[in-house]
Amino acid sequence: MTSLDDLPIRADLRGLSPYGAPQLEVPVRLNTNENSYPVPDVVAETIGRAIAAELRNLNRYPDRDAVALRGDLAAYLGHGLTRDQVWAANGSNEVQQQLLQVFGGPGRTAFGFTPAYSMHPLLALGTGTRWVPARRGADFGLTVGEAVAQVREHRPDVVFLCSPNNPTGTALDPAVVAAVLAEAPGMVVVDEAYAEFARAGAVSALSLLPGHPRLVVTRTMSKAFGFAGGRLGYLAADPAVVAAVQLVRLPYHLSALTQAAARAALVHRDALLGTVSAIKVQRDRIVSELRSRGHRVADSDANFVLFRVGGDQRVAWQVLLDAGVLVRDVGLPGWLRVTAGTPAETDAFLLALEKLSS
Amino acid sequence: MTSLDDLPIRADLRGLSPYGAPQLEVPVRLNTNENSYPVPDVVAETIGRAIAAELRNLNRYPDRDAVALRGDLAAYLGHGLTRDQVWAANGSNEVQQQLLQVFGGPGRTAFGFTPAYSMHPLLALGTGTRWVPARRGADFGLTVGEAVAQVREHRPDVVFLCSPNNPTGTALDPAVVAAVLAEAPGMVVVDEAYAEFARAGAVSALSLLPGHPRLVVTRTMSKAFGFAGGRLGYLAADPAVVAAVQLVRLPYHLSALTQAAARAALVHRDALLGTVSAIKVQRDRIVSELRSRGHRVADSDANFVLFRVGGDQRVAWQVLLDAGVLVRDVGLPGWLRVTAGTPAETDAFLLALEKLSS
Repeated sequence: MTSLDDLPIRADLRGLSPYGAPQLEVPVRLNTNENSYPVPDVVAETIGRAIAAELRNLNRYPDRDAVALRGDLAAYLGHGLTRDQVWAANGSNEVQQQLLQVFGGPGRTAFGFTPAYSMHPLLALGTGTRWVPARRGADFGLTVGEAVAQVREHRPDVVFLCSPNNPTGTALDPAVVAAVLAEAPGMVVVDEAYAEFARAGAVSALSLLPGHPRLVVTRTMSKAFGFAGGRLGYLAADPAVVAAVQLVRLPYHLSALTQAAARAALVHRDALLGTVSAIKVQRDRIVSELRSRGHRVADSDANFVLFRVGGDQRVAWQVLLDAGVLVRDVGLPGWLRVTAGTPAETDAFLLALEKLSS
Repeated sequence: MTSLDDLPIRADLRGLSPYGAPQLEVPVRLNTNENSYPVPDVVAETIGRAIAAELRNLNRYPDRDAVALRGDLAAYLGHGLTRDQVWAANGSNEVQQQLLQVFGGPGRTAFGFTPAYSMHPLLALGTGTRWVPARRGADFGLTVGEAVAQVREHRPDVVFLCSPNNPTGTALDPAVVAAVLAEAPGMVVVDEAYAEFARAGAVSALSLLPGHPRLVVTRTMSKAFGFAGGRLGYLAADPAVVAAVQLVRLPYHLSALTQAAARAALVHRDALLGTVSAIKVQRDRIVSELRSRGHRVADSDANFVLFRVGGDQRVAWQVLLDAGVLVRDVGLPGWLRVTAGTPAETDAFLLALEKLSS
């Protein structure tokens, strides 16, 4: 039998495993920061009708530029954005891959403050971009001084910022984004996958877009919108950035089904985003419960919480799984990440957590 | 206003335009080799029901490995293939991009016999893979001797073959595939997007898969299946190749909607592929009508025909467009490509063609 090692794969991919959290059948799944609330029936029916209207014409290629969808996304974002400033793809992973293809690639460097979204270095690897991991400060924070010094040292072609940061959960001070923009020689990508969950006072980097053509803000419908299965990520930036990614996007990358489903979901955004406040309540409840039990916990502006366990997090992860609760081991020694879902899921998590201390 | 030139895009992308045929509103669109027949109502209803069953759970990520769909695709292909030998993505462009990410990339070379599918060099560009264009022989043919000599000269990491070849339409002698496999030091990708339209006697490279772990055959549901808007491409190869592309695939790249829709379409494959014989009749009719009018025409195993026009093909393209028929200028001086669609579309094309000679 042929093995992977027998094939002429790239040297830098040898020995690696595919990215991905375990997809396990477990009563309580709090490991991938999905929205625990199913799509409401009325929304599902609207999406179903929108898709049904496309099915007869699936023999034709979809709108290659997804113009109508991009207009809807711009209207959702506000900030005076128009469709020329928005681009969409199959998840924000694909958006970020396209950004690296056009602004990174062979001979160029991408850079992020780890721990951050673990796909960023993998997207760099997949696009032949050299990855430079920069450091976060105490308690996973990032000050203007820490950020600027490291950008100055490495002069990366693409800087990834992540706000709220995954896996730590904390939103970035907009002064950091502005300072990095001023210092970085290339593009600055702010990954705002969890923006809708931010606490009062958090500021989106969307507000920095005017006058900053090297700034890109990426978003997703996978989290707050509860649309993970629909796969829709997008970016907002200067129209020139949108023109740039079109040089490398695969033609017809976004199916007619995806475009129709996402547009219908955006019509019902109030219903879909109605879960956000309930999830934030659970998020804050998890944070305070964990702290009251003596865990160190990172401040969270997202739909998940990073918390410290006593000892080896791999052991703690298994204890929780054995109790029917799947959380995420993000590879940070001593820490685990749990998604905030329904009240019942929080109950189950907090109950399972008691097994840790016993 | 910021222009593309003001942004730090890669030097090798400067001055390029996005790939894509014009998406024009024209009565008769015969430019992108779509299947002209709409999805039958009974099939659309089945797909609609399959999708509706997924909508409530769109808050959850899809099956990252699309296991059930890959099983269905393997069963469709036959040749004793199993799901472990099949991989799927959003169109065969994405499949081929993944193949270049893992087997090509910086410092490596991809290679194809032009004219062939014009995305192959663009996928190389987007993945940092050096592209080497090899030559086809007389009348766009390719003999064992011509193919092997050029592979031997360039020793490419990835060879693209295209059978039936786009834009010329002719299927490849399987002896060429076998000889290239024997000579090539790396991977050999046979793009069979149009395989279902081949004339009697054409042999798929699927028959060569046993014992050839460096062979990959890519297919699509965009053409014969009339599923271009659904975006589903796939490959068949050794299980080690499937494991290899999983190192670079974006997690959850294939939405729950796409997986459900493609599976439902495969259930109705007899109804969908029922259009193929009618399209082949029109294809053969176009070939013989064009030849009887004195045009040079490449033999076609696809749902399109490449034919020679008198003089500048850009002028001829515009004449046909002005007569309401959109065909494809593939950039081959003196040649145009027309898709075979319905009998009425063939009528309109042949009528418009009379404007050329006047």
